Amino acid sequence: MIKVGIIGATGYAGAELVRILQNHKEAQIVWYGSRSYIDKKYSSVYQNMFKLVENLCQDDNLEELAKQVDVIFTATPQGYLAGILTEDILSQVKVIDLSADYRIKDVATYEKWYGIEHKSPQFIEEAVYGLCEINRDKIDKDTRLIANPGCYTTCSILTAYPLVKEGLIDVDTLIVDAASGTSGAGRGAKVPNLFCEVNESFKAYGVASHRHTPEIEEQLGYAANREVTINFTPHLVPMNRGILATEYATLKRKADGSLPTYEEVKAVYDKYYGQEYFIRVLEKGVLPETKWVEGSNYVDINFVIDERTGRIIMLGAIDNLVKGAAGQAVQNMNLMFGCKEQEGLNLVPCFP
Amino acid sequence: MIKVGIIGATGYAGAELVRILQNHKEAQIVWYGSRSYIDKKYSSVYQNMFKLVENLCQDDNLEELAKQVDVIFTATPQGYLAGILTEDILSQVKVIDLSADYRIKDVATYEKWYGIEHKSPQFIEEAVYGLCEINRDKIDKDTRLIANPGCYTTCSILTAYPLVKEGLIDVDTLIVDAASGTSGAGRGAKVPNLFCEVNESFKAYGVASHRHTPEIEEQLGYAANREVTINFTPHLVPMNRGILATEYATLKRKADGSLPTYEEVKAVYDKYYGQEYFIRVLEKGVLPETKWVEGSNYVDINFVIDERTGRIIMLGAIDNLVKGAAGQAVQNMNLMFGCKEQEGLNLVPCFP
Amino acid sequence: MIKVGIIGATGYAGAELVRILQNHKEAQIVWYGSRSYIDKKYSSVYQNMFKLVENLCQDDNLEELAKQVDVIFTATPQGYLAGILTEDILSQVKVIDLSADYRIKDVATYEKWYGIEHKSPQFIEEAVYGLCEINRDKIDKDTRLIANPGCYTTCSILTAYPLVKEGLIDVDTLIVDAASGTSGAGRGAKVPNLFCEVNESFKAYGVASHRHTPEIEEQLGYAANREVTINFTPHLVPMNRGILATEYATLKRKADGSLPTYEEVKAVYDKYYGQEYFIRVLEKGVLPETKWVEGSNYVDINFVIDERTGRIIMLGAIDNLVKGAAGQAVQNMNLMFGCKEQEGLNLVPCFP
Amino acid sequence: MIKVGIIGATGYAGAELVRILQNHKEAQIVWYGSRSYIDKKYSSVYQNMFKLVENLCQDDNLEELAKQVDVIFTATPQGYLAGILTEDILSQVKVIDLSADYRIKDVATYEKWYGIEHKSPQFIEEAVYGLCEINRDKIDKDTRLIANPGCYTTCSILTAYPLVKEGLIDVDTLIVDAASGTSGAGRGAKVPNLFCEVNESFKAYGVASHRHTPEIEEQLGYAANREVTINFTPHLVPMNRGILATEYATLKRKADGSLPTYEEVKAVYDKYYGQEYFIRVLEKGVLPETKWVEGSNYVDINFVIDERTGRIIMLGAIDNLVKGAAGQAVQNMNLMFGCKEQEGLNLVPCFP
Repeated sequence: MIKVGIIGATGYAGAELVRILQNHKEAQIVWYGSRSYIDKKYSSVYQNMFKLVENLCQDDNLEELAKQVDVIFTATPQGYLAGILTEDILSQVKVIDLSADYRIKDVATYEKWYGIEHKSPQFIEEAVYGLCEINRDKIDKDTRLIANPGCYTTCSILTAYPLVKEGLIDVDTLIVDAASGTSGAGRGAKVPNLFCEVNESFKAYGVASHRHTPEIEEQLGYAANREVTINFTPHLVPMNRGILATEYATLKRKADGSLPTYEEVKAVYDKYYGQEYFIRVLEKGVLPETKWVEGSNYVDINFVIDERTGRIIMLGAIDNLVKGAAGQAVQNMNLMFGCKEQEGLNLVPCFP
Repeated sequence: MIKVGIIGATGYAGAELVRILQNHKEAQIVWYGSRSYIDKKYSSVYQNMFKLVENLCQDDNLEELAKQVDVIFTATPQGYLAGILTEDILSQVKVIDLSADYRIKDVATYEKWYGIEHKSPQFIEEAVYGLCEINRDKIDKDTRLIANPGCYTTCSILTAYPLVKEGLIDVDTLIVDAASGTSGAGRGAKVPNLFCEVNESFKAYGVASHRHTPEIEEQLGYAANREVTINFTPHLVPMNRGILATEYATLKRKADGSLPTYEEVKAVYDKYYGQEYFIRVLEKGVLPETKWVEGSNYVDINFVIDERTGRIIMLGAIDNLVKGAAGQAVQNMNLMFGCKEQEGLNLVPCFP
Repeated sequence: MIKVGIIGATGYAGAELVRILQNHKEAQIVWYGSRSYIDKKYSSVYQNMFKLVENLCQDDNLEELAKQVDVIFTATPQGYLAGILTEDILSQVKVIDLSADYRIKDVATYEKWYGIEHKSPQFIEEAVYGLCEINRDKIDKDTRLIANPGCYTTCSILTAYPLVKEGLIDVDTLIVDAASGTSGAGRGAKVPNLFCEVNESFKAYGVASHRHTPEIEEQLGYAANREVTINFTPHLVPMNRGILATEYATLKRKADGSLPTYEEVKAVYDKYYGQEYFIRVLEKGVLPETKWVEGSNYVDINFVIDERTGRIIMLGAIDNLVKGAAGQAVQNMNLMFGCKEQEGLNLVPCFP
Repeated sequence: MIKVGIIGATGYAGAELVRILQNHKEAQIVWYGSRSYIDKKYSSVYQNMFKLVENLCQDDNLEELAKQVDVIFTATPQGYLAGILTEDILSQVKVIDLSADYRIKDVATYEKWYGIEHKSPQFIEEAVYGLCEINRDKIDKDTRLIANPGCYTTCSILTAYPLVKEGLIDVDTLIVDAASGTSGAGRGAKVPNLFCEVNESFKAYGVASHRHTPEIEEQLGYAANREVTINFTPHLVPMNRGILATEYATLKRKADGSLPTYEEVKAVYDKYYGQEYFIRVLEKGVLPETKWVEGSNYVDINFVIDERTGRIIMLGAIDNLVKGAAGQAVQNMNLMFGCKEQEGLNLVPCFP
């Protein structure tokens, strides 16, 4: 049995880890870290867990926790883990970080976009960017530190990845327009996240400045084998869960000047995702909708070629709390501990 | 492996059966009946099932189906099953009916409230009212026909049952005020169920005339050992899932004129529900909220005694599609086939 | 031109005052009081007012304000106005208080339910409870202080008032079950009011303890000419605006033992409301829905007689921010200043 | 008094016309056309109008109607008006068509995108595209036929228009990503528009094929003085009202290779919109949100320059039923009849 500790167990991502791990046969949570609710029953904070979780919330003592568990999930604010992680801890316990601290390889880029100093850059090199479908072969029993990808980034990257990798699109034209349910904003008590402020409205935010931009650029840059600069625009949707990415790029024309056909593009998606359990490339003409992946670890993807403009529109949908956070974190844990990759993640999307 | 056929698999309750049975270890759906979508892929109707269900929808041939499966779930309009059920079918297959056809023992009452003639009253006597926590001992391998309780009724009855049974309240004063998410209205294409009609509004409907009234009255009548007549008022909430029942009744005073104490009432709830896995009597002061049971088979219950008026306010919450329909139907199937009662129903409530 | 000052202009009720007064021909807001946003543009807090309101938010200096305006609306927390109101202020300016400070005539009752000491009980007697349809003849140019009714209370009282007044129901059996949109919870940044906490859920709160209870009891007590004790249970609906009250009471039988007829009850409603512009007693069989009054000052009312139980179910719907707060406050202002009662309140309900 | 007839008065756009015209001082509706509800009280279909509108719904007799009114609004399906409009009718009455029948000057384009034959192409030339802020000088007392712009198109065009007109952006790079509330889908009883299907989900639709595409292209083509081909992608938001357009284009660099500055772009917006009452170019850094224009005729616009990619992101928000349909139609009526352009349209955005 894998002993699990969670730091930040009372945020939405932390709570989703708790929900998912309830049905994981090889893991057991033994530490529900929550600075805000120390010594309170976890189920008094999340009443859905009444009778299911009897534990009290505990403080965030990472050093102590490292001695008691096999893996720590940190669902904490940016900079938190970077500020306290040590070689001593990493030598005792695996860490899966749901924050952005080790996602970006270039420290200067991290510090610029996040506006904070990185306190432990020495671990960045070692950290594996845990986008399992792309980096699966880098994650195994020797992996000590996973940088679990962001929610928008998971969706944005996976939606475009095969076409970038295979050079079908001009990456300089790539635009990612995305929208997320409100759980992505976290459980902090802020006026803009109040029901009446979010409900019955739709808005963009972080235009040309959202922190997931450099993360998408870096990963797609590896695929393209060159530097990638994109526009990424997130929007807030009055719903709890779900991210949809709508991505635009100019298709490279073939030697004869024609555009790639539907079948040619589909074949490229199938090449990369045909065997992937969690990625569903939809049938022709069926577009992703966030409701069809809600509560599950699936990524639903499809595309439309616009002959008029020569562009391809790629669309991807995930549940931001599952594949965009806790589900992918568990998927990474499974890879790190040699469990079946799907263990605990046979979550059937719940509709309506 | 229990072979399962569903008639009405493309309604919301039918779709929830499909979702739940995906993770049931001893049952397998082999017939997805849907008159509206014959020969279409089930997953083209419910895209969440893409890659999970490969079957096509089939017609509703009950006779043919009876030969192929061990149990049939009918998630069909009122009167449908009563019109086609025969002894021949029942001799071959178990039937769990999610409609109201066999819930009410008195045919005249059924015909009056539902406004249709009952075509097979000969099976009413045999049918077991499948409210598992109350009628568990009547459901076993010999049971052929289950009348699966209604959504409002499940919640309304279980919330008040112990106090009615033990005679703590004056049942003549019982008022059930309840509210449901919109999935309870089904997937029919009707103007009142359109997004813009339901969203941003709250209304009562079926006041003094809702069909679940006689069902609640009959069942609480058995508990009270006398005839019970109540007011039941349903409301429509702009949300997908969930039912909350708020029930009012005058507490019977003790010999000394005092009201029963919190502890005395709590003890009565615990007597009936203390060992029930799916019923969670909450801690003092914690009120049920539908979000805490969403996606699960739980019933969350609590109560408040109002010393000023001498009334008790009892509150119960369920997910109308799970404990109020498909979950309870699977629970009944488990009892009928000798499976573990929780099999397939370890559904952790999903929040947010 | 009536010069208006608002204290608490950046709460939801304050903002609704601003919206309504935009189209009031005889009033003009000159002071937008908001302690939290002093010196910020009002339209930077409520962007809907961009280009419509150029003013900056100002501090809450009641003494200074009294010199500058003809009427002050206080949309402030309980106890605020009671703590600062003086005879000197009242001698200079009219005050319409949207808080509960002067609603309840019995100080002990106020202090018990609100848990705070009342700092200026000397003004309670003078304050007029501003439920215009009932107390219109007490509100005129000499009125100095209006206690503007609560949102739940406005709806609850008006829905039952004629039947209580005329003695058609047994008030000891009256139960008020009500539900409100989330704007009723205010704009404070609290976790329970976050989008993800409210959305997709329904709950009761303040069961047997909500502060609007004694306010309803007092007013209905005046109508009944006796002490009234009721159960009042509020619920939270995942929508922005709207209150629906569903009220239950046993009808008094006539001398011959029969219940009053629909026509008899309707005649009583018409007697009190037939001439009221803002109260719409709906046609037989049409139930109130909050969406039909949204954005307007209307109260929609109807009832159903249940012959089976001898009870009447009365239903009323309002927009909590309009008739339940700012609209009624403006209606009171109109009465106090001799304007046409509807001035500024010809708000057509906005649907969808 | 302008006598108004509405054909399609019981659709959402028709109902919004009714709402708006309630407070129009110079117009009066005398004909509520609704084929589905002939002889039913209009207020029984839209209960918000109870006591405000006493009229019955009438059939769609355009010829008869032409004799009785001064202007007809047609809020009808595509092809309806084109099928019945005659010179005789137009010689008697002004027509403001909310459908697409006369929006597109090129018949072949119309027929291709709408998939229907145009039955009265002889009126296309005469019809004025009623985007008031751009075509105001073409609309006056002699105008007989207005093609009222589409909802997405109004928002999409106005958001980009000044930069296209002034040549600041490369129109070949223009991408319009937009999202709409569900009222845009109309009041037809279709499964995809049911509450449970729309709620808690976000999806794109009509990708590379939505009918508003050629309308945007044609109008921006006039501004650019060249042919324009764009990508337009609409999305469905689980809310009632509101459209947000997020538009991307590459900025043309200045002679020195630098991008235009914020101030330079702002000056261009101000040149076109500085005097426009209904267009609000927001302050620097403030992004449009649909909630801030809800219920009003405003268009809120702003932009962000991304130095990294050389693109500008333009954002615009409207209420799809007001500026996107009924409000703009009334604005056109005001211009056609010489009323004040704002008459009836001083609608303060309603929040929350």
